[in-house]
Amino acid sequence: MRTLRMNIEYDGSDFSGWQIQEKTRTIQGEITKALSVLFGTVTTPPVASGRTDAGTHALNQVAHLHTETTLPLDRIMRGLNGILPQDISILSVKEAPQDFHARYNAKRKRYRYRLRKGKIAVYRNYVWSIPQDLDTTAMNEASTIIIGKRLFGAFCKQDPIPKTLECEIFEARWEHQENEWVFEIEGNRFLRHMVRILVGTMVEIGLGKRSPQTISNLLVSGKRENAGRTAPAHGLHLLWVKY
Amino acid sequence: MRTLRMNIEYDGSDFSGWQIQEKTRTIQGEITKALSVLFGTVTTPPVASGRTDAGTHALNQVAHLHTETTLPLDRIMRGLNGILPQDISILSVKEAPQDFHARYNAKRKRYRYRLRKGKIAVYRNYVWSIPQDLDTTAMNEASTIIIGKRLFGAFCKQDPIPKTLECEIFEARWEHQENEWVFEIEGNRFLRHMVRILVGTMVEIGLGKRSPQTISNLLVSGKRENAGRTAPAHGLHLLWVKY
Repeated sequence: MRTLRMNIEYDGSDFSGWQIQEKTRTIQGEITKALSVLFGTVTTPPVASGRTDAGTHALNQVAHLHTETTLPLDRIMRGLNGILPQDISILSVKEAPQDFHARYNAKRKRYRYRLRKGKIAVYRNYVWSIPQDLDTTAMNEASTIIIGKRLFGAFCKQDPIPKTLECEIFEARWEHQENEWVFEIEGNRFLRHMVRILVGTMVEIGLGKRSPQTISNLLVSGKRENAGRTAPAHGLHLLWVKY
Repeated sequence: MRTLRMNIEYDGSDFSGWQIQEKTRTIQGEITKALSVLFGTVTTPPVASGRTDAGTHALNQVAHLHTETTLPLDRIMRGLNGILPQDISILSVKEAPQDFHARYNAKRKRYRYRLRKGKIAVYRNYVWSIPQDLDTTAMNEASTIIIGKRLFGAFCKQDPIPKTLECEIFEARWEHQENEWVFEIEGNRFLRHMVRILVGTMVEIGLGKRSPQTISNLLVSGKRENAGRTAPAHGLHLLWVKY
C-alpha cells in the first residue's frame, strides 16, 4: 500500500467545509469521489492537516491518502485536476512515508485574514467588510500579547472543549496594505474557530471598542463569552502547513 | 442641474461589460436602473472614464452623471449601495464642475493584470492560468520598450481603427510575488484591448516563444496580426483614473 501526500488549493465559497457529509458539497467529499473515479475503486477519504469551515479557503492545504493504485504521481495529479471541479486544484502529489499523517505530523501552520472598509464588490468572497477604518497600531499591540505558548480557551469554540488549550504562536501581525487590513498568524496548532475569534476580537480593538489589554484578560480568564464575535469564515485563508 | 462624479468598484465576472445593452446585465445598466429608483425618475446613464470588457474588474472606476436631484451626496451614495447588487459598490459621490467629463478629462489610468501557473481555485475569477513559469526578466525587458509616447496600432482591436494610435506610457512593470506574476501599467490613455494584447504578447515572451525585441518590431509595423493573443478579460483590473 502507498501513502500519498497531496497539496491542495480550494475556494471554500461553495463548500460546506472540508469534512465529508451526506447531501452537501464538501472538499473531502469531492476529492474522494474523484479518487474513486480515477482509481476505478471505492477509495477512503484523504485526511487533511485540519478541517476548514464552510466558506474558508486554502491556498495550500495538505492531506494524506492510502491507496493500492500503481498509477504514477503525475498521472494522479493530472487525472484529479481533470475530474475535480474548478474550485479545487491539486498542486502536487508525492510519495510519503507509510505512516505519514497530515494532521498528527503537522508542525506549523500559517493563516491569512483579509478585511476592508465598506461595501466590497471585487474579491468579496475573500474579504470581510467592516464599517470603519481600523487602528492598526492597537491591533498589533494586541497581537504581540498572544506570541509564545498560551492557553486559548477564550478563543475557541468550546463544543466540545478541546483536550489541550495550549498553542504556541510564532508570529501574529496586522498590515494595512492598499485599502485592506491583512492579519497573518503562524503557530504550531490552532483550535476550532481560533483565528476567526482572534480576528473578531482584534477588530473590536481596532474599532476602539476594547483596549489591546483585553487580550491578556481573555487569555487568563479563558472565557469564550467575554471575547469578541467569530469573524466570518470567508475572510480566512489557510496559507500553508509545515512538517 | 448638478454634475456628480462617482468612484465605482465592480466585479466584472457576471457582467457583459460596462456599456448598457438591452437584455444583458451591464454595470452601466445596473447603475442607471438604481439611479432611476433612487431619484424616482428616469435618469440618463452615467459616463465612465472608459468602457471595460465583459469579465474585467474595476477597483476604482470614475463616472460622471447629470441630475436634477436635490438629495445630499451621502444619501445618494448610501441609497445606491443599498439598491445595487453586491458586485457593484459606489466608493464615493462628489459634486463636480458642470462640464466635468469622466472620459475626456481623464489624464492618467493604471491597470493591473494577474497571472498564475496551473489550475487556479482561489481567486480564479481574477487571475489568468498559464501553463508554465514565466521569465520575469525577459518580460520586463519588453516592458521598458513601450515606455514613452508610442503608436499602439499592433496592440489594439482595429475594428474600427482608432483615430489616434498614440499613447504615452509612464510605467509598465512585471513583478513575481508569492506564486503570481502581476503586470501593472500606467498611461495617459489606452486603446481597446490594448492591455490584454500587451499581456498576451509579453506572456509569449515570458514563455520563451518570442524575444523581447518583438515588441519594437510590433510598435514599428503596427500589425495586430503579428502580436500575441488577447489575454482573457478576467485577469484585468482597472486600478484608478486621475484627472
